[in-house]
Amino acid sequence: MSRVAYVNGRYLPHRAAAVHVEDRGFQFADGAYEVIAVHGGSFLDEGLHLTRLHRSLGELRIEPPMADAALKAVMREVVRRNRVRDGILYMQVTRGAAPRDFAFPKSRPSLVMTARNARPLDPKLLERGALVVTLPDIRWARPDIKSVALLPNALGKQRAKEAGAYEAWQVDRDGNVTEGTSSNAWIVTAKGEIVTRQADHAILNGVTRLGVIEVAGKAQMKVIERPFSVAEAKAAREAFITSTTNFIVPVTRIDDATVGDGKPGEITRRLRALYVEYAARQP
Amino acid sequence: MSRVAYVNGRYLPHRAAAVHVEDRGFQFADGAYEVIAVHGGSFLDEGLHLTRLHRSLGELRIEPPMADAALKAVMREVVRRNRVRDGILYMQVTRGAAPRDFAFPKSRPSLVMTARNARPLDPKLLERGALVVTLPDIRWARPDIKSVALLPNALGKQRAKEAGAYEAWQVDRDGNVTEGTSSNAWIVTAKGEIVTRQADHAILNGVTRLGVIEVAGKAQMKVIERPFSVAEAKAAREAFITSTTNFIVPVTRIDDATVGDGKPGEITRRLRALYVEYAARQP
Repeated sequence: MSRVAYVNGRYLPHRAAAVHVEDRGFQFADGAYEVIAVHGGSFLDEGLHLTRLHRSLGELRIEPPMADAALKAVMREVVRRNRVRDGILYMQVTRGAAPRDFAFPKSRPSLVMTARNARPLDPKLLERGALVVTLPDIRWARPDIKSVALLPNALGKQRAKEAGAYEAWQVDRDGNVTEGTSSNAWIVTAKGEIVTRQADHAILNGVTRLGVIEVAGKAQMKVIERPFSVAEAKAAREAFITSTTNFIVPVTRIDDATVGDGKPGEITRRLRALYVEYAARQP
Repeated sequence: MSRVAYVNGRYLPHRAAAVHVEDRGFQFADGAYEVIAVHGGSFLDEGLHLTRLHRSLGELRIEPPMADAALKAVMREVVRRNRVRDGILYMQVTRGAAPRDFAFPKSRPSLVMTARNARPLDPKLLERGALVVTLPDIRWARPDIKSVALLPNALGKQRAKEAGAYEAWQVDRDGNVTEGTSSNAWIVTAKGEIVTRQADHAILNGVTRLGVIEVAGKAQMKVIERPFSVAEAKAAREAFITSTTNFIVPVTRIDDATVGDGKPGEITRRLRALYVEYAARQP
C-alpha cells in the first residue's frame, strides 16, 4: 500500500510530498511539531498534544494553520488513508514560505502531516532495560518549545547510537539531567520516590510524562518533580524514560554504572503496566 | 524574468523548487548553509565561504554533496540563469531525506541553491548609522557551525525589527556581546583600537569579519579579538556590524545609548572604504 502525506491542503503520494525550499521550516527551523501515538486506531492524548502544539505556536507567534476541528479532521484522514492502527501521526507547522529574511515575513503557515504503522517495541528491550549515555546539554535556552530546531538532539542521539546506547541523557551546567534527546528522564530513589525534572524552560513537557504523573498519582505512587544529578541517577534504585513512541522503557545502565540490580525495576514495571492500561482505556 | 533554483541535480522554476517533507533540513534543522555576495558578477571570497561550508559539514558529519569543482560550476550556473550581477547566492546542504529518526540515517545529502539581485544598502543607513538592541543569547552551544538551526536568530531579528532597530546584539551570561543575529559585532575604543569577539564556539566566524581584519591589518589599524561587554560598547567611540549583505554598517545607537557623537565614526567609515576597495579588487 502506498503512503499518503498531507501538505498544505493536498493529500499527496508520500514520494511527492514536498515543501518549498524557502519554507522557513527548511531555512530557519522556524516551526513546531507533534508526534501523536495512534493506539488501536485512536489518538492517544490528542487533547494534550493539541494544547502543547498551540503553546509552541503561541511562543513562536505562528498562527495556527486552521481551526482545531479542521485540524482533527485532517489528522483522521491522514490516519485513514495510511491505514494506521498502531503507529504514529507526525504533524509539523511552520511559519510558511517567504523570500528569505530573518525577521517574520507575511506568510501563511505550512502544515504537513504523515502517519505510519509502527512495530511494537522489542520485548528484549523491556526485559533487559536500556543503556543510556550522558552528554552535555548544548541546546538553545527554550527546549520547552517543541520546535524543529532539533540539530543538537540529532547529534546527541547519534552519539548514543554509536556508543551502543538507546538514548542520551543531556546534562546541564550544574550536573543535573535535563532530559533525553527525544524522551523524558526519570529515576526511582532508594525511598521509592519517583523523580523527574520539573517542567520549566529546560525540558519539553512530554505528553507521556504527564500521563505517567497522572497514573502514578491515581495509584498513590509519589512523584516528585525536581532536578537530579547524574551521580544520583547512577546510584538510583531504578531509572526509566518516557516518550510517545516508547511509553515507558526501563533504564538499567547509565554510562558505565549499573542501575539498581541491573534489571528493570519493580516500580518501572508497575508504571508501565498502569500506563498501558491508561492508553487502552482511551476512547 | 523568472527565477531558477537548483535542487538536487535539477534547475527548476523558483515556484516549483521544493524538497521532500522528510528532508532533515525541514524536520531536524540538520544542515548548513552559506550566503555568498555576488559583486560585479563575481563571488566575493568564494574560497573562504567554501572552506567554512566544509568546516560546518565536517562538524555535522555531513558528506559534501559533490566535489568543489562541480559545486562551483553549479554556483556559476545558478548566478547565470538568474542574471545576478550584484546580489547573493544562497546555498544549503542538508543530511538529506530519510524516514524520520533522530540518529543519522543512510541518506544522500541535499543541495539547494538560489540567487537573486539585491538593492544596494539604503544610503541613509550609512549616513545616519543603525540602532541595535541587545538581548540574551539563547542559542545552542555551537553557533560557530553555520547550521540552519536559526530559530533563535529569527526570533531575535524580529524583536529588533519591532523595536525599530536594524539588528539585535546577543549577550552571553557574562554580559558580553557575542554577535548579531546575522552579523558580527565590533566596537572602536577610546584609544582607537578596533575590537571584535574572538572566533571561538560562541560566534560564527564571518567571512566579512575575516576580510575586515585583513584590510585593517594592511592599513596598520590595530584589531584586537576579545570579548566586550554591553556597557563597554555603549561607552565606545564607534561601533559597527559586518556581514555578507551589509559589508560594514555603522552603529550609532545601542539600546538607549548614543555611541560616540551619534554619527558614524571615522574609523568605521575608513574601514568601509577599504573593504569596498577590497571587494572591488577581487577578480
